[in-house]
Parts: sequence; structure tokens; C-alpha cells
Amino acid sequence: MAATTSWLPADAKGDFSIHNLPFGIFSTGTDAPRAGVRIGDSIIDLKALSEDAAAAELKFIKGAARTFAEPTLNAFAETGRATHRGVRAELQSILSETSSFLKDNEALKQKAIVPVSAAKMHLPMQIGDYTDFYAGYHHAFKVGVLFRGPDNALQPNYTHIPVGYHGRSSSIVISGTPIRRPRGQILANPTAPTKEPITSACKRLDYELELGCFICKPTNMGDSVDVNEASEYIFGYVLLNDWSARDIQAWEYIPLGPFNGKNFGSSISPWVVTSDALEPFRAEALENKTAIQPYLQETQKKNVYDIQLQITINTDGKTDGNVIAETTSKNLLWSFPQMIAHHTIGGCNLRAGDFLGSGTISGTELRQRGSLLEMTEGGKQDFEIGPGKVRRFLEDGDSVVMHGYCEKDGVRVGFGECEGTILPAKAL
Amino acid sequence: MAATTSWLPADAKGDFSIHNLPFGIFSTGTDAPRAGVRIGDSIIDLKALSEDAAAAELKFIKGAARTFAEPTLNAFAETGRATHRGVRAELQSILSETSSFLKDNEALKQKAIVPVSAAKMHLPMQIGDYTDFYAGYHHAFKVGVLFRGPDNALQPNYTHIPVGYHGRSSSIVISGTPIRRPRGQILANPTAPTKEPITSACKRLDYELELGCFICKPTNMGDSVDVNEASEYIFGYVLLNDWSARDIQAWEYIPLGPFNGKNFGSSISPWVVTSDALEPFRAEALENKTAIQPYLQETQKKNVYDIQLQITINTDGKTDGNVIAETTSKNLLWSFPQMIAHHTIGGCNLRAGDFLGSGTISGTELRQRGSLLEMTEGGKQDFEIGPGKVRRFLEDGDSVVMHGYCEKDGVRVGFGECEGTILPAKAL
Repeated sequence: MAATTSWLPADAKGDFSIHNLPFGIFSTGTDAPRAGVRIGDSIIDLKALSEDAAAAELKFIKGAARTFAEPTLNAFAETGRATHRGVRAELQSILSETSSFLKDNEALKQKAIVPVSAAKMHLPMQIGDYTDFYAGYHHAFKVGVLFRGPDNALQPNYTHIPVGYHGRSSSIVISGTPIRRPRGQILANPTAPTKEPITSACKRLDYELELGCFICKPTNMGDSVDVNEASEYIFGYVLLNDWSARDIQAWEYIPLGPFNGKNFGSSISPWVVTSDALEPFRAEALENKTAIQPYLQETQKKNVYDIQLQITINTDGKTDGNVIAETTSKNLLWSFPQMIAHHTIGGCNLRAGDFLGSGTISGTELRQRGSLLEMTEGGKQDFEIGPGKVRRFLEDGDSVVMHGYCEKDGVRVGFGECEGTILPAKAL
Repeated sequence: MAATTSWLPADAKGDFSIHNLPFGIFSTGTDAPRAGVRIGDSIIDLKALSEDAAAAELKFIKGAARTFAEPTLNAFAETGRATHRGVRAELQSILSETSSFLKDNEALKQKAIVPVSAAKMHLPMQIGDYTDFYAGYHHAFKVGVLFRGPDNALQPNYTHIPVGYHGRSSSIVISGTPIRRPRGQILANPTAPTKEPITSACKRLDYELELGCFICKPTNMGDSVDVNEASEYIFGYVLLNDWSARDIQAWEYIPLGPFNGKNFGSSISPWVVTSDALEPFRAEALENKTAIQPYLQETQKKNVYDIQLQITINTDGKTDGNVIAETTSKNLLWSFPQMIAHHTIGGCNLRAGDFLGSGTISGTELRQRGSLLEMTEGGKQDFEIGPGKVRRFLEDGDSVVMHGYCEKDGVRVGFGECEGTILPAKAL
């Protein structure tokens, strides 16, 4: 993979180089939300580009024109991976420095290139169902140790099943949307033998660093997806912060799983990075020593991506926070194709726009952990997030910023940021 | 409440008397799905009625005309309960035997009255999120006894929280849709100390008798619904069969809850019975001796409905099955307003079309139980479903039919049926 450059300003070492070209939904002023592709600090307006006479030469872009005027990427996603690949290749071609197609067409440039600073980003997809998995092995292990000790940290099913649960899709919001601290039932004294709940603002508010995946190809109820064909069902990826109210979750989650502890908000980054853009950064998932069932066995050994993931907490309205944790998406025990194969083995149908979360991604070391719960030993120790600043859980006004990028041979493909700031709870 | 009659044939003792008038989505031939109201064996085509010149006299029906051409009831639901009430009152008026408005308008009758036998029913709402609660006390207790013994049958949170979890909305289907027996991971020998899974067709397939509730009024993220205002958020109710694969569920559900054990299909009855139609049948929920949190305390004491619920299993393609279980929706510990208040206490937003399940409804006696799991002591005893026919769990070809109705002072309001037939699992 040789580094190519664009005639549009786009740092080859930036998240949005010509090697990336992620899809998103943006609007400007009072114009309706529509599809765009990001390069550097510019957005290519796919609606404007595809409607222009000059687009006749661009077979895939012209062919998908009707989908670019939609307020979500669902229709474009459903055109399938060959079309996504074709559109991206045509864009790479007309954006490369050797192409004059767009560079020398002033009228079209005026119409079809929008500065990022002038755009408002929207949720990229209309999300039907959101499923959150638990595939981050080191996170699951650490949390298990905190709750049950090292001998029983993981359930017997953990290495056999990509464990997952159904999440809440209505409260998935785009990066930059503030998150209101939830209220709910928590235990007045969690360690007391008598379980007496109170209604309170959450006292143990946390983030969870995850990778999210959008489905592009629907299935029929009763059908299953072969694990080795599952990548055809993946449109692309975003960063996901699955905000968690640990005290609400602890009191509610037995026996049916997390509910109000998770459903008050989940944040995602706005640009959907395609599987094709991530292809050069394939890596092997964590080794699973368990003999897994045939429907989960992949022929592709490099079944995950090596995405560097970072967390920063900014406080007091400033943006000078340091990176407090850094890990990689190689720290997954299960790949997204395995999650899809498992999700559909029983016949559950997928729809374009469905969203899958990886589960919290953590490494084994303190500064590689994807949640405060893990960094503070369940809220028992301070963690220094900056000079003289410590946290056990999030405080009002804290802004949690997640970044993710791949880098290899001078080429970088990144996700931009996934940010959310905590607003104080409403009064009871 | 005096029994009124209609000039249209509609047995006052039938589910769809003039006192009911539930809303649904139907189509005929190649015509697009649209809104209708059922009376007896007829459907009033609300699109045709509202578009006719004569409808000018019908203020609410005329006002909601644009929503009746939609392929779901979401837009109509969002018009709010005052409009639902107004439309239903206008229909009750023109359908009563003293009204000549429609009875004597042959042209309009031709356009706006469709025999049920000529109609195909569709999902009434586009369902955003599906949340399944666990409010059937006797079910939760019985299942708890089977899993943990009588002393620990219920979790400490059960009487404090309307326990619920997020379900799968993509696989909610309309009554009459066959259900494919799921495949998945189950334990080869569930009682062995070593947990060795196999991939298999489900061997412990079950139904769950529930009441489902559609939301009509959206909320903003961060907002909570007051329990005493929550009924304004309820469009109406349907029967729900939350099909369950007990063996898949048992192996997967710790620690994050049911997933593939539930997401392969859920069936609902097609006609949405409004809160207004159920109003005369209010009853008190089961007594909760726990001091519940203020946000769950209702001033309305009669906070549930006394709906008679019945289960029949037909086999071998016949329709001669007997009622094998009969219970009432009074057997809930929590009301739907309490579920809504709890769902939103943390700020989770609701959308029109969201769907809430009550959880399995059971009485205390053998023939009052809403699942086979409870009737067979966890699959350990046969249960006689008809002369010489026993079941522990469902067999291929079994057709499970649920009915529900209220009856009082000679007036009946019913749900029709919620049916699903089990297809054999696909080969592995």
C-alpha cells in the first residue's frame, strides 16, 4: 500500500486521508441532511456530486444517486459492498492529485465541496436494533474479578459464545450530544445484607470504549449468516461510547441483564469507516483456546483490525486533557463476523442499519482499560486523569473524548472523535 | 355502560363489538397497506372513509385523514389520545343502529367497508424499540422456584423495580406468521458439572403469554414520564407471544440476559385495542407489600385491566384444540404506567411505535400458567394438551393460539387471536 495524496488538503497522517473516505450524513444551514464523504477538513456532498451532469462518467456514484439524497445512509448501505467499493474507488480516483475531473471544475467544486466547519453531522443510519456484545476479553475478565474473584471471573459460556444482549436504539446519539446524568434506583448501602433502594442521581457514572458496526445487508427471519460470508453484511465501523450507570446497573441487572443502567444514552462517532478502508489493518484476535462450535469457525485468521483506541477526559470546559488510556481493537476474543454468525444462528433477522457494539475494549494494563470501573478497581481507588485531578467515576461537566485510528506504512485511517459531556441530573 | 348495537353485523358478545373498535393495518389485493378499524367481521377502511366528501362532518376522522394512508399507525398514534378518542367516538356514532350516515350511503359503504375475509393484516406499527418486562408475579415466582428453590425464587429487586430488558424488534411478526424452530448452542448435558455445548435445534421450545403495549407519545432524551401521566403515552394493547428457546436461553443468559433464546420471533395480534375501549374493565394489580419508590406510586388504584387470557394448542393441522390454560391480566405486580415511569426515570427516550411487553402472565394454578416451562415443572412432567396428547415443550407443527377478552354487563371487548405455528428447524 503506497501512500497517495489528494489535491484537496488532506494530511496523509490525519484521520481523513484519501485512504479513508468514510461516509456520513451532514447538513448545512437549513438544507436537508444528506450523504457525504469526508476528506481532510472537507466533505464531498454526494447528493450534489451525483446530480451533476459530469457525474455521468462516474458509474457507481451515478448509480447510487437516489440514495445520497436520503437523510440516512440506510438505502446506500443496502446497495451492497460492491457499490460501496465502487463509489469509494471513484472518489479516490477523482480526489487523487493526478485527476483533473473535479479539481478543474470550479462550478462543481462550489456545489460539491463543503468545509467541515460549515456542516452539522447527524446520525449516519436509522438504527433498527442495537445489539451490544461483550467480546473484549480483558474487560470481561477484569469486571468478573471485581464482582466474583479471579477463579470465577468468566462465566462458563464466555469462550464458547460471543455473549451479547439487546440494547436501546432510541438513545443512540451523535458525537457532541450532551449526556444527562441519569437518575434511578440504587442501593442506599450496596454492601448491607438488606437491600434497600433509594431513588437518586447516578453516583457511579462511567464510559465504555467500544467499536460499533453497521449492518448493510438484511436477512430473512429463519435464515443464518455463514461466518465466512458475514463480512458482506458489514457496512462499516464507528467508535461507540456505551455510557453506563454502574450503581443503577448493579441493582437492576439480575436476572435479565442491563436496562436503565445503559439505556439513557450511547454516543457514536459520525463517520462510518468502511471495511474496505480498514482492510490493510487486519490483525488476529486474541487466541481462544476453547474448541469453538463449527458455525463460529472462520477461515480468515486475521479476523479483527488493529485500531489504536484512545480516551481523553476534558474538564471545566477546557480541551487540554491528556490521553488517559490507550488500547487496540485486537483485544477482542470474537470478531464481528463471529458476532453476526452467532446473532443469526437461531434465525434472528438483521436489517440494514442494525448496529452491533463490540463490548468494552481493554488491554491488560491500568492505562489500557476502557472504563473507569476497571481503572479504579470498582470505584475503590483514585485514578489521575490529569495533573492534580483524579476521578473514580465521572463528574458533571466531564467531557469524554474517544479517538481511534490505524496506521501502517505512512498511511493513516481514522475515526475522528466520539465526544459526550455530562450534564447534571435533573432534580427529583 | 349499556350495550349498544351496530347496524353492521357485530355480535355484542364477540371480540369486535361496537364497544371495541380497535385499529389495525390491512391491505386488500394489490392495494397498499392502510389503516382500518374492525367491527364484527368487517373492517372500516379509514383512508377511504376520511377521503370521502361526506367525512367533512366527521371532525376527528377528517383531521387525521393524512395518517390513515400510511402503512403503519405510527403517525395516527402520534396525534394523541384526544384524537384517538374522537375518531373512535365518531365511528361509534356512525356505526350505531340509530345512525343513517354510513348505513344509507351505499357508495361510501362500497368503498369503506371491507370484509375481514378479503383483508391481509400487517404489523400495526413500525416498532422502534421493544422492551420486555417481567411483571407477571406468579410466573416470575414459579420460574424462580424451578431455578433456585422457593426461598430464593425472586431476586431482591423484584418487588422494587418493574424488571425489564431490551428485546429484539426486527423479529416481531403478525399473528399467523409461522415460527421457525431456532438452532443454537445448548448444553449436551445440562446437569453435568462440565459445561460442554453443542449446536442443535432447540429441544425446549416454549411460548410465553403476554400483553403488549404500544407507545403513542414520544419523549425527549433526559426527560422522565410521571407515573400518573403515563396513560397518555399509551396508544393501546395487543396480545404477545414471546416465543422462548429454554435450552438456548439457559446456556447464554448469565450475565447479560436473554438473547438468542428470545430473538428468533415474537408474535402479536393484529388489532390494537385502545386504552379507552379497555377503560370499563379496570382492576387492581396484585398487592405489592413492598414500600415502592415515589416515582412508581400511582394515585389510580385500578391500574391494570381484567383481561381473560386463554391458550390453545392445535396439532396436526387441525383447529380442534382445547383451551389448556386460562388466566387474567390482573396477575401483574406492575402496571404499564409504572413500567413507563421506570423506563424513563433515567432519561431513556420513548418513540411512538415503541412496544412494551408485560412479561409472562400466569395464575397460581396449573391450568393458569402462561408457559409450558411452568406447566411441566421445567420439562420434567407431561402436560395433557388434549385427549391422549401430551407435551413437555412444543413440537414441530404445533399451532399456539392465544385469545384475550374482557366481559362485563353484557359488553365484550376482545383482541382476536395471536397465532403461530412451529416450522421444523433448518438442517445444520
